[in-house]
Amino acid sequence: MKPVVVTNIPRADRQLIDRLAALGTATAHEAMGRSGLLKPYMRPIWSGAQVAGSAVTVLAQPGDNWMLHVAVEQCQPGDVLVVAVTAENTDGMFGDLLATSVKSRGVVGLVIDAGVRDVKTLTEMGFPVWSRAVSAKGTVKATLGSVNVPVVCAGALVKPGDVIVADDDGVLVVPRKEAEAIAAAGETRVANETSKRDMLASGVLGLDLYKMREPLAKAGLVYVEYKDED
Amino acid sequence: MKPVVVTNIPRADRQLIDRLAALGTATAHEAMGRSGLLKPYMRPIWSGAQVAGSAVTVLAQPGDNWMLHVAVEQCQPGDVLVVAVTAENTDGMFGDLLATSVKSRGVVGLVIDAGVRDVKTLTEMGFPVWSRAVSAKGTVKATLGSVNVPVVCAGALVKPGDVIVADDDGVLVVPRKEAEAIAAAGETRVANETSKRDMLASGVLGLDLYKMREPLAKAGLVYVEYKDED
Amino acid sequence: MKPVVVTNIPRADRQLIDRLAALGTATAHEAMGRSGLLKPYMRPIWSGAQVAGSAVTVLAQPGDNWMLHVAVEQCQPGDVLVVAVTAENTDGMFGDLLATSVKSRGVVGLVIDAGVRDVKTLTEMGFPVWSRAVSAKGTVKATLGSVNVPVVCAGALVKPGDVIVADDDGVLVVPRKEAEAIAAAGETRVANETSKRDMLASGVLGLDLYKMREPLAKAGLVYVEYKDED
Amino acid sequence: MKPVVVTNIPRADRQLIDRLAALGTATAHEAMGRSGLLKPYMRPIWSGAQVAGSAVTVLAQPGDNWMLHVAVEQCQPGDVLVVAVTAENTDGMFGDLLATSVKSRGVVGLVIDAGVRDVKTLTEMGFPVWSRAVSAKGTVKATLGSVNVPVVCAGALVKPGDVIVADDDGVLVVPRKEAEAIAAAGETRVANETSKRDMLASGVLGLDLYKMREPLAKAGLVYVEYKDED
Amino acid sequence: MKPVVVTNIPRADRQLIDRLAALGTATAHEAMGRSGLLKPYMRPIWSGAQVAGSAVTVLAQPGDNWMLHVAVEQCQPGDVLVVAVTAENTDGMFGDLLATSVKSRGVVGLVIDAGVRDVKTLTEMGFPVWSRAVSAKGTVKATLGSVNVPVVCAGALVKPGDVIVADDDGVLVVPRKEAEAIAAAGETRVANETSKRDMLASGVLGLDLYKMREPLAKAGLVYVEYKDED
Amino acid sequence: MKPVVVTNIPRADRQLIDRLAALGTATAHEAMGRSGLLKPYMRPIWSGAQVAGSAVTVLAQPGDNWMLHVAVEQCQPGDVLVVAVTAENTDGMFGDLLATSVKSRGVVGLVIDAGVRDVKTLTEMGFPVWSRAVSAKGTVKATLGSVNVPVVCAGALVKPGDVIVADDDGVLVVPRKEAEAIAAAGETRVANETSKRDMLASGVLGLDLYKMREPLAKAGLVYVEYKDED
Repeated sequence: MKPVVVTNIPRADRQLIDRLAALGTATAHEAMGRSGLLKPYMRPIWSGAQVAGSAVTVLAQPGDNWMLHVAVEQCQPGDVLVVAVTAENTDGMFGDLLATSVKSRGVVGLVIDAGVRDVKTLTEMGFPVWSRAVSAKGTVKATLGSVNVPVVCAGALVKPGDVIVADDDGVLVVPRKEAEAIAAAGETRVANETSKRDMLASGVLGLDLYKMREPLAKAGLVYVEYKDED
Repeated sequence: MKPVVVTNIPRADRQLIDRLAALGTATAHEAMGRSGLLKPYMRPIWSGAQVAGSAVTVLAQPGDNWMLHVAVEQCQPGDVLVVAVTAENTDGMFGDLLATSVKSRGVVGLVIDAGVRDVKTLTEMGFPVWSRAVSAKGTVKATLGSVNVPVVCAGALVKPGDVIVADDDGVLVVPRKEAEAIAAAGETRVANETSKRDMLASGVLGLDLYKMREPLAKAGLVYVEYKDED
Repeated sequence: MKPVVVTNIPRADRQLIDRLAALGTATAHEAMGRSGLLKPYMRPIWSGAQVAGSAVTVLAQPGDNWMLHVAVEQCQPGDVLVVAVTAENTDGMFGDLLATSVKSRGVVGLVIDAGVRDVKTLTEMGFPVWSRAVSAKGTVKATLGSVNVPVVCAGALVKPGDVIVADDDGVLVVPRKEAEAIAAAGETRVANETSKRDMLASGVLGLDLYKMREPLAKAGLVYVEYKDED
Repeated sequence: MKPVVVTNIPRADRQLIDRLAALGTATAHEAMGRSGLLKPYMRPIWSGAQVAGSAVTVLAQPGDNWMLHVAVEQCQPGDVLVVAVTAENTDGMFGDLLATSVKSRGVVGLVIDAGVRDVKTLTEMGFPVWSRAVSAKGTVKATLGSVNVPVVCAGALVKPGDVIVADDDGVLVVPRKEAEAIAAAGETRVANETSKRDMLASGVLGLDLYKMREPLAKAGLVYVEYKDED
Repeated sequence: MKPVVVTNIPRADRQLIDRLAALGTATAHEAMGRSGLLKPYMRPIWSGAQVAGSAVTVLAQPGDNWMLHVAVEQCQPGDVLVVAVTAENTDGMFGDLLATSVKSRGVVGLVIDAGVRDVKTLTEMGFPVWSRAVSAKGTVKATLGSVNVPVVCAGALVKPGDVIVADDDGVLVVPRKEAEAIAAAGETRVANETSKRDMLASGVLGLDLYKMREPLAKAGLVYVEYKDED
Repeated sequence: MKPVVVTNIPRADRQLIDRLAALGTATAHEAMGRSGLLKPYMRPIWSGAQVAGSAVTVLAQPGDNWMLHVAVEQCQPGDVLVVAVTAENTDGMFGDLLATSVKSRGVVGLVIDAGVRDVKTLTEMGFPVWSRAVSAKGTVKATLGSVNVPVVCAGALVKPGDVIVADDDGVLVVPRKEAEAIAAAGETRVANETSKRDMLASGVLGLDLYKMREPLAKAGLVYVEYKDED
């Protein structure tokens, strides 16, 4: 792995990205055929944010945030910074100074497979972060990594320019070239769900709505009356 | 394990269940002789809920929520849906559509030893969930499990119709036939605690209030003056 | 390990402690040369508290909170109770009665490498707790431990009278005799950060502000244009 | 939970138990419809043991092995001691003295959801143990638990007298009254597997042997030629 | 994610693969610039194996080994089967029947980010496996996945045809097109290490051999005499 | 934390150290009053070693083994190298070259709260290691730490010159100045255990040998006959 910074990465169209943000992770993930999710240990530092943006990727060393400073320069308005680490680590690699810096460049969120600090300030700033940990532990600036190379972040492959969708349910990576199809599929899904939700709210059972009774019986499900064992 | 749905399970009296809800998990758990708690990795998706209800149990396959749809039909107002999985799993097996469905049947909460999704919507709906994880990861509907059989959920045995008590401190299962005795014991405990709390607030030490000084001395506790080591 | 309670421990000056509280963990930890942090699994039960106090230490047995009652008597206004356990444990060793008791003595917070319960009440009381877990699981009072001996809590050595700094980023232990120097170093750091924050907010890059371009190039970092692989 | 020792528990027939031992956990577990396994963190302290026996169950407090001493008296030749703990714990609750004691009573193995110590000696004694951890950490004898009550051990319900099957693949609990049927089903399975193994060894594909090609195609599986992406 | 089987994947030259096997994971990983390792939770089921082979990749559902049967047909002599799962899972997805089948096709090892069973038999067969867990837990055959698509396995991206190197230190993935360069770099490294090993064995310090004294001093390292604190 | 190397640390007498090695961790730990153990995640890379030695301590950065090279020079025959890391890490910081180097200086073992590699070679060399992980992941040499300062390693405080005892049950740290008393207490314990072991082997129950029946009854233990619930 030679340390490298890749410049001028492609990005999806902003309007398309906004459509994915509106879907949220759960719906977009279903629209992708249930792939692309980061592991569920990635949690938001505050609740309620729902964003999408183009991934600027960082591959950093554990306990070393040098490459985050390098990555800032590669960010454009609407980007999401995605930080992977070469070994499991929970150090607080990102705090309020870096947040100030990336916010000034229009970055809409951070996804980091490590720790974050100054979370009270970041929350007050309204800057959304999804991380593996919160930790005051500071880091050194000693060893190179890379920016805008494909990385595995929290178990998912992220290529620079992929669309990151993140909300309270987690973080999803949508390959840039599939983004249009997935947005469309997700929107169809949303349209379908509304009528389903109404039916279910009115008391119709999923068993009937989704016509599950026959396949369940065929698979061998049997119903028996409760019998007290005492 | 043959897949089966047990119908017409018995339930504790609603008034009795409400008494247990009022106690909360910590007090009811003490009243049970400190047994019956699910493991502490079961956390609420939002803070402040305190509920109790009759357990409708589900044994599901990892990554497969088919049996949750089956279970809905077995639910009555005041029930708590309790989902155990045959292998450790964090997939989001329950989301806003299932929540809409169970809410329409009067279910008061979900306890799931796996993941949950659409947590923002569930929070807005005021539907309480205690889960092992939050994850946007969707699930298939392919393999049978069972409904209303005894299950081990997060390390605790839950039989259908047992009373589930859940709040910010965790989740407790109260065997149905012991519920009356435990409610009574817990209420006695609460009554005692009020005066203790007043004493402690006024500065009386637990050492004196609980008469611990003599047993501590007998057990060999000694007091020594601090001596600086430098 | 003979069970012992050490009395009359020394404490840092209150004004000094307040200066450390104002810095917060991230800054004070940097001022210490990036040491002294407890592991990041120690999380606050509610967000926003930022306290500092003198450590009254407890070494307890897993599932046994007898020594916490003993420790209360050793607490003075402004102290932080620090509980270490002889083996990993998540039981709820501290609840609203103990909180009432320590609060009446002026204790400003609890740091416990185990579980805590009655978290809803503790939150309403405004009593801050950093713990490994939340659990309704109660404990026995059967086996002695020690009070005010040096303990390893969540991976950090804490001596009685050391200054504990805790906020949303975690928990830091500042050796009592180094507290003055660390407060001063931290305050210098804060002063420097303000101008840096302004620069970064105005769009100056950290690469330039921290003069990183030359050392990065020297370390071998190269920039290449993105080339689509398809 | 009142502390109690249940005496004169029933046991399955020894010959039946031996048939289950011969099957091993993987086969017996399949014969049970894939239920009854303890969680996979339960690992043998040495490789190669394959035993079965009647469960004498213990519910102990974390860090307290008092009830193990009580349980020894309830053991008969051919039994397996099964220890559950009221909270997660890794202390070494069982060592060479207890092993000497239970071995003198004919106990054939230990299953403990906690730690074990003196593993070198236990290995030399040829005494098999499946545990969550190895730890030299000793325990107190201070608080009661129970013997021969139903326990949840490593996520599985074990009733006294159930048949425990354990080998390098893990630990299985077979309900006593289902043991006969499961042994028979497992033996049928073994008979079938021999010819399958021969077929597979000769190069026949499982796809053909199990007639999977049609259902796979029906489920939508497609085959495409590799195309280099560069 | 549409379920697909990719056929006729490319493979590296067998002689080249053997050179990588001879290097082992630690040396090959250094030769790659310290990248490409699977997470260290991937452990061998028996010690001493050191293999390399071309990756046939599987993306499977948790608790479902249907696609492993599909993958067997795609295997050639010298291949390593690499199984990734769409959600964390420890079920025993691979046992002695599958091992018999893949062995008959010349597969030299299995890397699976899930569980494996029949480990005693697999060990007797001399079939090497690196897995996340050992578990007797069986799996269903109900839901499609894919074969020979790029997968993230235990945190590393594996493309079909990449070279897998595995030994007691873990599992490494070498991109097919970089294999030649990495083998060469590793062999140079080995040549260098031999003389270093001799020097170190003779008592020469690494401090001198690697000329570290000056950079250490420059970085600020100081030496002080021990002073007893009591 | 200023980076420092402390020279000429004191060591316990070799004969005394050998007495502690002969006791092993479980017995020595009991003799210490059940304190001083490192967490049980510290496991030997090969079974059967039982050593003791004087601790030469290292505080290293995650993923950086520079200070291990510095520490070698401080080692004398009979020492144990003890490596703590400033943040949780599993990288392979120690391999066969470092092992060759420390072995040439007479070091008898390594205790490292991180990863180790070349474990096959280390095993062939008969060099014992207790570690948190095995990992081929290599490390950089970029950031200073310290040698021979007090460290917290795997949850235990280790001061330079303390006696480390390690075997298959784990790792124990014996404060240098208490070593004599602990060796003596442990030897008394061993003497007592021999006759106890004989009694237990002959079938005497621990209940009688340790006179537990009366305290158990006093604590409230009751015996009841088994009653089948069906």
